Amino acid sequence: MRTPTPQDRFSFGLWTVGWTARDQFGDATRPALDPWEYATKLAELGAWGVTFHDDDVVPFGSDDAERDRIHSTFKKAVDDAGLVVEMVTTNTFSHPVFKDGAFTSNDRSVRRFALRKILRNVDLAAEMGAETFVMWGGREGSEYDGVKDVNAALDRYREGIDTVAGYIKDKGYGLRIALEPKPNEPRGDILLPTVGHALGFIAQLENGDIVGLNPETGHEQMAGLNYTHGLAQALWSDKLFHIDLNGQRSIKFDQDLVFGHGDLLSAFFTVDLIENGFPGGGPTYTGPRHFDYKPSRTEGMEGVWDSARANMAMYLGLAEKAKAYRADPEVQAAFEQAGVLELSRPTLAEGETLADLLADRTAFEDFDADAAGEREYGFVRLNQLAINHLIG
Amino acid sequence: MRTPTPQDRFSFGLWTVGWTARDQFGDATRPALDPWEYATKLAELGAWGVTFHDDDVVPFGSDDAERDRIHSTFKKAVDDAGLVVEMVTTNTFSHPVFKDGAFTSNDRSVRRFALRKILRNVDLAAEMGAETFVMWGGREGSEYDGVKDVNAALDRYREGIDTVAGYIKDKGYGLRIALEPKPNEPRGDILLPTVGHALGFIAQLENGDIVGLNPETGHEQMAGLNYTHGLAQALWSDKLFHIDLNGQRSIKFDQDLVFGHGDLLSAFFTVDLIENGFPGGGPTYTGPRHFDYKPSRTEGMEGVWDSARANMAMYLGLAEKAKAYRADPEVQAAFEQAGVLELSRPTLAEGETLADLLADRTAFEDFDADAAGEREYGFVRLNQLAINHLIG
Amino acid sequence: MRTPTPQDRFSFGLWTVGWTARDQFGDATRPALDPWEYATKLAELGAWGVTFHDDDVVPFGSDDAERDRIHSTFKKAVDDAGLVVEMVTTNTFSHPVFKDGAFTSNDRSVRRFALRKILRNVDLAAEMGAETFVMWGGREGSEYDGVKDVNAALDRYREGIDTVAGYIKDKGYGLRIALEPKPNEPRGDILLPTVGHALGFIAQLENGDIVGLNPETGHEQMAGLNYTHGLAQALWSDKLFHIDLNGQRSIKFDQDLVFGHGDLLSAFFTVDLIENGFPGGGPTYTGPRHFDYKPSRTEGMEGVWDSARANMAMYLGLAEKAKAYRADPEVQAAFEQAGVLELSRPTLAEGETLADLLADRTAFEDFDADAAGEREYGFVRLNQLAINHLIG
Amino acid sequence: MRTPTPQDRFSFGLWTVGWTARDQFGDATRPALDPWEYATKLAELGAWGVTFHDDDVVPFGSDDAERDRIHSTFKKAVDDAGLVVEMVTTNTFSHPVFKDGAFTSNDRSVRRFALRKILRNVDLAAEMGAETFVMWGGREGSEYDGVKDVNAALDRYREGIDTVAGYIKDKGYGLRIALEPKPNEPRGDILLPTVGHALGFIAQLENGDIVGLNPETGHEQMAGLNYTHGLAQALWSDKLFHIDLNGQRSIKFDQDLVFGHGDLLSAFFTVDLIENGFPGGGPTYTGPRHFDYKPSRTEGMEGVWDSARANMAMYLGLAEKAKAYRADPEVQAAFEQAGVLELSRPTLAEGETLADLLADRTAFEDFDADAAGEREYGFVRLNQLAINHLIG
Repeated sequence: MRTPTPQDRFSFGLWTVGWTARDQFGDATRPALDPWEYATKLAELGAWGVTFHDDDVVPFGSDDAERDRIHSTFKKAVDDAGLVVEMVTTNTFSHPVFKDGAFTSNDRSVRRFALRKILRNVDLAAEMGAETFVMWGGREGSEYDGVKDVNAALDRYREGIDTVAGYIKDKGYGLRIALEPKPNEPRGDILLPTVGHALGFIAQLENGDIVGLNPETGHEQMAGLNYTHGLAQALWSDKLFHIDLNGQRSIKFDQDLVFGHGDLLSAFFTVDLIENGFPGGGPTYTGPRHFDYKPSRTEGMEGVWDSARANMAMYLGLAEKAKAYRADPEVQAAFEQAGVLELSRPTLAEGETLADLLADRTAFEDFDADAAGEREYGFVRLNQLAINHLIG
Repeated sequence: MRTPTPQDRFSFGLWTVGWTARDQFGDATRPALDPWEYATKLAELGAWGVTFHDDDVVPFGSDDAERDRIHSTFKKAVDDAGLVVEMVTTNTFSHPVFKDGAFTSNDRSVRRFALRKILRNVDLAAEMGAETFVMWGGREGSEYDGVKDVNAALDRYREGIDTVAGYIKDKGYGLRIALEPKPNEPRGDILLPTVGHALGFIAQLENGDIVGLNPETGHEQMAGLNYTHGLAQALWSDKLFHIDLNGQRSIKFDQDLVFGHGDLLSAFFTVDLIENGFPGGGPTYTGPRHFDYKPSRTEGMEGVWDSARANMAMYLGLAEKAKAYRADPEVQAAFEQAGVLELSRPTLAEGETLADLLADRTAFEDFDADAAGEREYGFVRLNQLAINHLIG
Repeated sequence: MRTPTPQDRFSFGLWTVGWTARDQFGDATRPALDPWEYATKLAELGAWGVTFHDDDVVPFGSDDAERDRIHSTFKKAVDDAGLVVEMVTTNTFSHPVFKDGAFTSNDRSVRRFALRKILRNVDLAAEMGAETFVMWGGREGSEYDGVKDVNAALDRYREGIDTVAGYIKDKGYGLRIALEPKPNEPRGDILLPTVGHALGFIAQLENGDIVGLNPETGHEQMAGLNYTHGLAQALWSDKLFHIDLNGQRSIKFDQDLVFGHGDLLSAFFTVDLIENGFPGGGPTYTGPRHFDYKPSRTEGMEGVWDSARANMAMYLGLAEKAKAYRADPEVQAAFEQAGVLELSRPTLAEGETLADLLADRTAFEDFDADAAGEREYGFVRLNQLAINHLIG
Repeated sequence: MRTPTPQDRFSFGLWTVGWTARDQFGDATRPALDPWEYATKLAELGAWGVTFHDDDVVPFGSDDAERDRIHSTFKKAVDDAGLVVEMVTTNTFSHPVFKDGAFTSNDRSVRRFALRKILRNVDLAAEMGAETFVMWGGREGSEYDGVKDVNAALDRYREGIDTVAGYIKDKGYGLRIALEPKPNEPRGDILLPTVGHALGFIAQLENGDIVGLNPETGHEQMAGLNYTHGLAQALWSDKLFHIDLNGQRSIKFDQDLVFGHGDLLSAFFTVDLIENGFPGGGPTYTGPRHFDYKPSRTEGMEGVWDSARANMAMYLGLAEKAKAYRADPEVQAAFEQAGVLELSRPTLAEGETLADLLADRTAFEDFDADAAGEREYGFVRLNQLAINHLIG
């Protein structure tokens, strides 16, 4: 497979390669490098962009002078490496102050602090030239139903997001907010657990026009949901602002594997959608190919860079196969038999009224449902064709 | 526990007690009664309402005369028993014609047939005096990502729902549509898999004002999601039109157990929300207490009626406990400590501008995050208090 | 990919291609053929063997004359087609009599009936020349903890299996029993839910020497378990008597997809184990490559045969890739780095006593744990190499 | 509910109340106390015993003098508090050296180090007077199928356990080993993922007579399995040496909630089994009631102690209800109808031979399967009776 280039628009969170592999049951197995070291190396590997949480670059609680100093060093390194900072996000989950959430903490002083921390970071995102501001509310939720008034929590969540979005508009920043859903972990139940819940939430916002989604592969799969379907509904709703690609194996703790190292067949269709769009046309995704994964705890720094490479190689490999899949005349014939493109045709004919439909005896009274029930869709064969393209 | 009365507004699908217990791996273990027999018996047990799919009452493919005859007999029996037909729904999943879906079948003739079948049933629902028209798109989905253009499918789904909703408005029927999400089974992945996805979908409808949700306990839990949180977001979005109560044990096939026979603690908080509303006030649910369950296949008709009774007894028992829980001064003190009610207080003070917030040094610069991180929320104790109320 | 031949030893359950696609929520979408029609067609496609439940061939309750007539017709057709009947199994789950189980039904008369039905089928299996007698206790379980004394149930289960195994020995049949675990569906919880539980159970049998396992891909994955690990432990215990290959996508209802249409990466490693054995040697599987899947309900008979073909093509394709994977020098080097083969070396040296180990200061007192913790295992890279082989 | 006393035999891991609430996504929210402070406080609350990992008491890498000093202080405090150290376990998962496992690490030097660390701790366990030595192999497993030879891994696992068990026997210690299964987290797939797999493994040991199980509520439920069924099979196999009680809500990351704060109905039946045994008699559990949970990260030290209290109160409350449930004549009548006790009656009569059974026409030829299929088991009603006892 070919080497990635900036034209591929691959980007990585600094916290991915920068994860020192401290987990719930164990200590760090890798040293922490300076943030710019990760960035520089990623550029070398062919990445186009980097992203980060405020605290990934500047330790929580640093004073303004220290913060400025680190930011300058970092920005210079990034610029020198030819990297883009395409997205910035805020850590509102690690410090104990956020143990019951940020925007939806039961403690109002925490909510205010969170809002300020985030607004400060919006300024930084704009300054860094980012286009997307991701918000993962990992601590917005609860373990026990009785301790959280979910109606009030959604009110506060809306207040928070609308306030930040309003600020972005006021400032004239070229930023859009992307919410990142997750069903659970670290909280027992997280608010806005899936792509769907976030879409429903955004529909209730005042400033929802600049608020969309950043769906993560594993997060949807942790709820047993189809990630590509999630991307599809986000696209259909015009809300797919950003993506977090990684790997997950079934419903369990958040694994953050390399993209494709989880459900490989699903990864193929994810890339097929991103690269080739829907078979019948429609909205497309044009943002970065962003990886949010964790190099396994068994890996040293060599393994870290191998895993970063693996994400990009996997994506490029799948993209090539997906192109061939779509172009294959046998696949196109199978699409035809399966009616894949027929679904784009409206159910009512152009200009057909409800009265017309009700009067159409071929649609109901004279319709042979039993015969239609015998149609050979050929779905299994079409799927096998896809897999043949995938596994060559 | 006391005997249920019509004032409790309990209703049952005819297909619940009427399930003959044929499952994926086995034959029916119970005889099929006439639909009015189920209804009459439910009335005896204290139910207030019944609901049904068209095909539960009139076999698929019956001619109009037969259909009218059965409907009259049924309606008379229901009236005589003092029952309400509060909801009607359409079966678009059993007949082979719907094997690839109804509104989103890749076959346009099937989509047209489905639309007609549903519209015919809308007339019936209105005639029966129902207030809610539930739509469960159990076959709208796919097993293989390549066979379904999800963007086109959502277009067709929207076209279908908007057409039905437009018809309801045109006719002036007092009906509202309630969509019922489900993540999978019988399809590998079902479109609109959760409460959230359906809320996001409704936001894209033209006639979405009369379209809301009918969340089912087990369906959300099959995705590992918190059912009560789902109800809460639906209420917050003003879209909780109807509910389907039942029981499910963890993530597996759709069990349709008696309400409370699955996750009992969750059932307690579900009833607490339905009966007592959110702790800090807000939207409330005023619709029927509808059960959508299946009497276990091991049961004969005696067991069927026992299970119907068990649903209502469980609800009444939990309702009583939930009242006591909310009224308990110790619980109220724990609410206070936990900040449950504090969450209803906006994060920005009344009249406070963003500039004010940014200028408030107590919110950020002078805020002691470490101290705030040490707050004792007392969530575990509050949960234990709830359980003490639940288990007496 | 090449066409399958009998040398590949592919076999299919008649109930797979013979499934008429009646599911929990819908009616049959395909006609039922005569059992010999399925067999003949499978032979044409390259299958080597067929397998069946008694009731797949002879309807439940048929009299002896009818039973004999059908069996003769069937046996002749199978012989004419050059097929082997490698395995026979008994249906103890479809008829209502088994609604609470067969060997573990709370009703003793049912247990006796089940035993007789199974013993009769053992004779048939021997007569048909089968080598394996599979037992899937799909109804052995419960929905409610209070209704089943699990200790007594396991006693009865043991009594049943030991009785059948004793009968096989008495008769001198060349048969081995293979238990098929499943966690749930159709019962809420099934006894012997995983490969592990069945291994633990077998260890308690009197006639356990001829009792082993028939693990099914999807059944283990329905519990979130690694199927290949399950096969491995069964092999390690010398109990992998038979396999059921199919596809499943995450934890949900039993999907019975085509092999490889579920977790593809896992399917690759399954085939790698079956074809190539463990990297460090050890027990191997030499039985049939048996598929237990269901052609999707959307398919007509053409789709049924396509799906049968797909199972075999998938297996052959994966087998070829797995060979290349093992032979690749880069993979072998990665094995070396990862220590994959080092694991076969005993922890204590040959002849080393416990006292020696305790006296070996290099093992503990002088061991540099921190340095060892920094080892680069290169696991991610090795996994990426495997995927490169898989996707060509 | 009454206050717990030492006669209740409640014990806690020091790492439970001692968890400082550092999780995968966040920093510690609570201070670390000295180990004896936790012990003393637990005694005050009514606990009878404490348990610990070596590293919970003495930091990894401490020299012998420091280790002895801490152990003496700790032992004295425990004795003064009247506590028993009923179980000791070894941490083979936190230090980076164990990142690929301990007994099954691909690195032989790590396996040797692990063995030594464990043997040293066996001595300590004996010295502390413990009766059980728990082994949780949390890092024994893998993320990628290709990196671990599972056959070799099970060989090494067996070698390790047999060596430790042999050492215990050699030394004449009054200790038994209890293996603790877990399906995943922190590894993608852990070896011996369930109670069943561990039972199957133990059956292959040379010194398996002193090796049994320590099943944890949440670990089995993370695989969607029924915990009480797991305990039952372990009892049936005479291998239930110890238990870890806690709470888990469905299939997700390891929550370690308070016992009963997860699946409450399941907790009731767990206690019913532990306190009252199987309905038809059989093996019983006589060991400690041990809690292995984590006080939620939202809690301060006050919440820690509340949560410890909640575990014991929950157990005592459920035990009382379970007694009343078993004693209730209505329950006993329902047991009768359901055939719960009938299951203890062997399927073959005393002295009945296989030939007798085959000759018994009432068992098969003259058996009315249809009639038997209509039996009213009354399982739903029996379950409702149990819930009525549970919720008072």
